[in-house]
Amino acid sequence: MEQFANRRTIRKYQNKEISDSLLSSIVKDAMRAPTCGNMQLYSVIVTRTQAGKELLAPLHFNQPMVKESSVVLTVCADFNRFTRWCELSSATPGYDNFLSFITALQDATIFAQQICTIAEHHGLGTCWLGTVLYNGEEISKVLDLPELCVPVACITMGYPDEDGVATERLPMDAIMHQEKYRHDSDIDIINYHKTKDEYPANKIYLKESGKETLAQVFTEIRYTKEMNEAVSDKLSKFLKKKGF
Amino acid sequence: MEQFANRRTIRKYQNKEISDSLLSSIVKDAMRAPTCGNMQLYSVIVTRTQAGKELLAPLHFNQPMVKESSVVLTVCADFNRFTRWCELSSATPGYDNFLSFITALQDATIFAQQICTIAEHHGLGTCWLGTVLYNGEEISKVLDLPELCVPVACITMGYPDEDGVATERLPMDAIMHQEKYRHDSDIDIINYHKTKDEYPANKIYLKESGKETLAQVFTEIRYTKEMNEAVSDKLSKFLKKKGF
Repeated sequence: MEQFANRRTIRKYQNKEISDSLLSSIVKDAMRAPTCGNMQLYSVIVTRTQAGKELLAPLHFNQPMVKESSVVLTVCADFNRFTRWCELSSATPGYDNFLSFITALQDATIFAQQICTIAEHHGLGTCWLGTVLYNGEEISKVLDLPELCVPVACITMGYPDEDGVATERLPMDAIMHQEKYRHDSDIDIINYHKTKDEYPANKIYLKESGKETLAQVFTEIRYTKEMNEAVSDKLSKFLKKKGF
Repeated sequence: MEQFANRRTIRKYQNKEISDSLLSSIVKDAMRAPTCGNMQLYSVIVTRTQAGKELLAPLHFNQPMVKESSVVLTVCADFNRFTRWCELSSATPGYDNFLSFITALQDATIFAQQICTIAEHHGLGTCWLGTVLYNGEEISKVLDLPELCVPVACITMGYPDEDGVATERLPMDAIMHQEKYRHDSDIDIINYHKTKDEYPANKIYLKESGKETLAQVFTEIRYTKEMNEAVSDKLSKFLKKKGF
């Protein structure tokens, strides 16, 4: 189980292409992942050309992985294909609602994670870009996505050119509960997060940020209330436009 | 890569317990899965007692796996722990919004899928229960979930007592697109779904249902518009109640 215990995100890639046949084999195996009602509510758009990456890069805040990876995979929550099949089969689809979006989002997320796991088993490195949710509408235009099809995961992939870093994690006790949710004390919550507060890279980051606590780095710089609310609003409007 | 290509959902389990140490090892390794900003926005509630399973079973429409598995894992999108840490660290959290829910939902879904993959590598069988989204509020009461913590994945797990079935999948061409979304013709859409229409178990299911097409089995029995809209409404209200 070493491959799971030692999993790392890889952001630096060799200048070496992933062959079409390897990529197809990864995607094909990932299609065996669990899916709601076997509806397979996902699609994946492969961006391999420099021109395609140039269009996507600014929409991912110019994170260098986009241009430096061998392929960029944009995984979409896709109820378009299934809906069209229903319409072509004398059936009246009802998948333009919130539950259907959430179902497709989960299907697509499971599929994307399975792609990453299988790619890593083939010796490749991967990195999830959370930015895909911030600029869904713009990404959708670049990739020419149809109705009921929304980008929800973006993965850069390539042959690793770094070992990656096993970043800190919370102790397992913080995550796992027996029979019922354990309502922890304030002291427990603080203790769980000591792994974060004391992690050397976080200490350096905190110092450079000029903030007093690591939590403030999250709330005032990385994921602020203002930004979260603005993106929530943008995402909701985009989902409506896409028919959900 | 056989373990991925041959993955099957397992619904029948031996009467044999998964040890605490094996379960802990699986959860610990799954915590290495990718997570947004390393915030680990998930929790997992382990239900092992018969009493606990009896309470959950009706909320999963009495699917027999709930009572017959060794453990039931309810994975939650959890912004409660992180929010409390912020409040205890002189930081003002802003994670009570739609984007934060979606972020935690994806974190939890990735974590849940990684749990399944690792469990399968240990020779265990797993089954996702999509029903968790239908009765979130009731499940939340049984498990005593706090604010900003919502159940989004339920997995039953045990030692397999069946081989499982490799159900049909769409051809890879239906799923994978190059550079831009390929807007398929009606004929293409119909052809992609022939694997479904011609799959023997689906043919039997169609005959028993009395419907004309397999798509009607989905739209009129399994996932109807009325049900999807009612559950969408219920889920939206529940998320608001939980603070998102």
